[in-house]
Order: sequence, then C-alpha cells, then structure tokens
Amino acid sequence: MGFFGGVEAGGTKFVCIVADAAGVVQAETRFATTTPDETLGRTIAFFEEQASAYPMQAIGVASFGPLDLDPASPTYGYITNTPKPGWAGVDFAGRLRAAFGLPLGFDTDVNAAALGEYLWGAGRGADPVAYFTIGTGIGGGFIVHGKPLHGLVHPESGHIGIPRGAGDVFGGVCPYHGDCFEGLASGTALRQRWGQPAETLPDDHPAWQLEAEYIARALVNVILLISPQRIVLGGGVMQRALLFPLVRRKTAQLLNGYVGSPALGEEIENYIVPPLLGGYAGALGAVALGMQAAGGEGQ
Amino acid sequence: MGFFGGVEAGGTKFVCIVADAAGVVQAETRFATTTPDETLGRTIAFFEEQASAYPMQAIGVASFGPLDLDPASPTYGYITNTPKPGWAGVDFAGRLRAAFGLPLGFDTDVNAAALGEYLWGAGRGADPVAYFTIGTGIGGGFIVHGKPLHGLVHPESGHIGIPRGAGDVFGGVCPYHGDCFEGLASGTALRQRWGQPAETLPDDHPAWQLEAEYIARALVNVILLISPQRIVLGGGVMQRALLFPLVRRKTAQLLNGYVGSPALGEEIENYIVPPLLGGYAGALGAVALGMQAAGGEGQ
Repeated sequence: MGFFGGVEAGGTKFVCIVADAAGVVQAETRFATTTPDETLGRTIAFFEEQASAYPMQAIGVASFGPLDLDPASPTYGYITNTPKPGWAGVDFAGRLRAAFGLPLGFDTDVNAAALGEYLWGAGRGADPVAYFTIGTGIGGGFIVHGKPLHGLVHPESGHIGIPRGAGDVFGGVCPYHGDCFEGLASGTALRQRWGQPAETLPDDHPAWQLEAEYIARALVNVILLISPQRIVLGGGVMQRALLFPLVRRKTAQLLNGYVGSPALGEEIENYIVPPLLGGYAGALGAVALGMQAAGGEGQ
Repeated sequence: MGFFGGVEAGGTKFVCIVADAAGVVQAETRFATTTPDETLGRTIAFFEEQASAYPMQAIGVASFGPLDLDPASPTYGYITNTPKPGWAGVDFAGRLRAAFGLPLGFDTDVNAAALGEYLWGAGRGADPVAYFTIGTGIGGGFIVHGKPLHGLVHPESGHIGIPRGAGDVFGGVCPYHGDCFEGLASGTALRQRWGQPAETLPDDHPAWQLEAEYIARALVNVILLISPQRIVLGGGVMQRALLFPLVRRKTAQLLNGYVGSPALGEEIENYIVPPLLGGYAGALGAVALGMQAAGGEGQ
C-alpha cells in the first residue's frame, strides 16, 4: 500500500501528515506559520524524515490563499496578494515540487476539505458534495464528478448574493460587496451586527434565527445550481448546536417543495450534515489532492 | 464516421435530426407535439427511415420536463408531473430505448443545449460552461468536467434567490418562490410587471435596466459558485440586443473586482455570449447526449 503526504497550510499554523490510501494517518507534525523560508523548511524536513518509513507516491497541499490555480499561468501555484507579511508572491507549489521530486496536488483549503470529506468523511457516497466553512469568513468548495470544481478561478462561494431578511437593514461587513453571504452571516458579521462575539450570544438570541435564515438562503442557491447530493457545513459558527436543525428547516421551507427529493424532507438530517474529519479535514484533504495528482484513487 | 440521432422534445414541437460526430446535420424533421403515441410514433418512424442511409450508434433525447433523471429510480426516464395532457407518467426514455435497441442519452432540454454549445457552439474550449435560457421561464444547465451537472436532481437554476433591486416592490410571478430569479426576470415577469409583453417595451424603457440587473445578479452567483469559463445566454428575452452589453457591465460592477480575471474585464465580450447553435441547439444537444451514452466523443 502506498503512502501520501498532506500539508494543511493555514495562515496561523501548518499541519503535515503522512497517510495511507485509505486516509489513515501514520505520522504528523504541527507548527506555527512564520516566514516562508522557515515554514517551508520545516515542512520539507518533516517529509524527508518520514520518507524511509513511509515512501510517498505524492504530496498534496491545501493552502490558504488567494492562490493562482490557473495551470496556464506563469505564476501557477503561487500565493498571490495575501496581506500576510512575506507570503505574497511565494511560489509555494514550485518550491515543494522541487524539494520532493514527487507529483504535487495543490488547491485551496476549502476544496481540499471538500475532497477529504468526499473520500473519507461526511460526503462519502455522494456526488456532487458541497462543503462550506462558516467562521470568521465563509468559504466553500464543491466536488463534482469526483474532482474539485474549478473553472475561471476557484469558486468564491462565500460572496454570493442572497435576498435580505424582512426588515434587516444591517449593511454587511464585506469590503467588496457589503451584504453578500459572508457580509451578512460570517462570524465577523455576527459580531458587528450584534455588538458582541458570536460565541457569547445565548441560544434564545434572535441572532440565530436570522443566521439560520441566511445560511439557508445560501444553501437554496447551492441546491438549485449545483444540486449536491450532500451538504457539509463546518467552521466555528456551525459549532452552535441549534443551527443545524434551524438551517435544515428553513432550507426546506424556502425551497417550498420545488425540489422533489426525500433529502429535503424526511432524510434532511442526512443531507445537511457536519463534517466528520475534524482537525484532520485540511490535512487529509491535502492527502487526497496528492492521490489525485498521482492519478490514484479518488481521481 | 458514425452517426447519431437527436430528439429535441419540446412541449409544442419535436425536432428530430441525424448528425455525424462533428455535429453536422444530415437529416431532419419537425412536427407538432400531440399525443404521446402519435408523437413518439412519428419520432420512431423518422429514425427507422434514416437508419439505412445513416446507421446510428446511439440516440439522444433532450426533453421538456419535469423528468425523473435518477438512474436508481423505478421511473427513471419518465416525464413526471407535467400539466401537458397525456404526458404525465410517460416512460419516454424506455419507449424509445425499446424501439431502437440503441444506447439512449436522456436529459433536460437545458442540459442538452448546454452540452451542444459546449461541444460545437459558443462554449467550445471552456469548462465549466453555464447555459441559461431566459424566455417565458428561466432554465439553466452546466457542463462540468465535460459532462452535464447532475446531483440530487437536475439543477433548477431559474429559481435561485437574488437580492432585490433598490425600491423594487414587485412581488414576482413564481408560484413557488415569488421573487426568485424566474419570478423577477422571466418574460412572464416582464409582462406582469410592466403590463405589456416584453417585446413591446421600447429600448429606453426602465424595464431593461432592471432586467439586466437581475440577470447580472444571477450570473454573479453562478460565477461565484460554479466559476464557469464561459456563460451562454439564450432564450426569447435575450433577443433584445441591448441586454448583452448591459448584463456584462452590471455583472462586472456587482463583482466589484473580486474575481481577478480578464473574463470580467477586457475579455467580457467573449465571456458572456449568445448561443451559436440557434434552432438546432436542442437537437444537437440531444445528439451530444447520444454520443456520451455511446461512450464516444464528449464523454
């Protein structure tokens, strides 16, 4: 059985793992994201140490962004205009590919997490799979016909437009669009709208009804455009236990019977679900990207 | 070179063609949609007549709906609950498959049109391709990784929710959702909102600015979720020449620089485009479905 490396490259920490083709983690390390030289150096050193015990067929990277993912671009695999000091313009994929001499998978953190959940987590057996992380910001990734959805660029699902709730006049917090989905429903929006951090809002606060409505409005658009067979919702905001039942009910209400499927009826608890991979979602997603780059399972 | 049959099955007329694998039409017939027995009889007779001159490898059907497209369903390939007399519950795909003894492709009219434009029309060279028809109603289909996007059901893209324009209080015409995209921007909505048919509204009527805004708001969501490399807009409403420049400008304005691609800038005229297949879009799309069913080109 072959082994694959996975790197979850976050803005604050890196998680590097080695896993087998069934997604079982064999080795791991975690460290803070500092300078590119130091951080990529630790990444490369980890995989070099593991190589004798776990000969790897490929490595995948699930990276914070924004990223250049256009294979035709001269800066393919670069981190582009991040505000993170030192990281803008770093040839992330190129430096790792040169160091390892292995096939390298490279994608956004949300596409990787979607792929990991699709192969080994809450999205197993479904296609398409939609994955959203609803936290400080909102991001989404989609697996369609077994592969992450890319096109003109990678999807920026957090910024779709949704109808406003009745009487809601909050301007939204998105610097680009004001009241897009992220502008209305991210953790940042919750804090600004209600004047306190989301985690301090009690369950009976009206914030949660409105939050569920906006998440449901986004899911309605995802369901009508992409028709996912499963929707996985992760991120800090979704830790609030009451949100899942509220979001499920409001999504079905808003669709109003238009999509005739048990997934919007008696089976909705198995349709709109939390992720299963937890703290390994990004790193296992990266492993899956490596497997696809090697032309293996999941391709 | 092989030949393929294509059936555009519309609620008012059927178009049957034989084409080669390059999408070149060799024979055709058109007739009104009457009873299922008579209409399917004429369809079968046409292909039987053509079979000696053009031996076909497969046939594709692009059908009006709603359709059951779940391969696991006992009523797969049926027309489901259409109000069209006599057609509800017809085993459309099954009857044609039995008559021809050939691989049969079967999909919605908009998915087929999307596939036809992707292979031979305005979507050539792009993936994903988004196709919308904006007429009496609004429908959309998407080609992703070379194949029509399906999932839980087929996409019902006409019914996505979009933000209302400033001061617009029109309730919308959708019986399910009121002011969804179709409810606000279909030809039916234009007629009801302004009290006259869309084709009688002059170019300088405010209807067209608002119409372009709503189409642009829908495209913004499609771009952010699916990231198509080309967007093809057909249908009766899009015949109004001034709409394309307005829709392009408003789409770029609403995205506000968030999607960093020339397709939303100097190349937008080649990004949001009219269809190229004209009156053959549905039937050629059906041919493409037949080719995919046969495992041939476009698979």
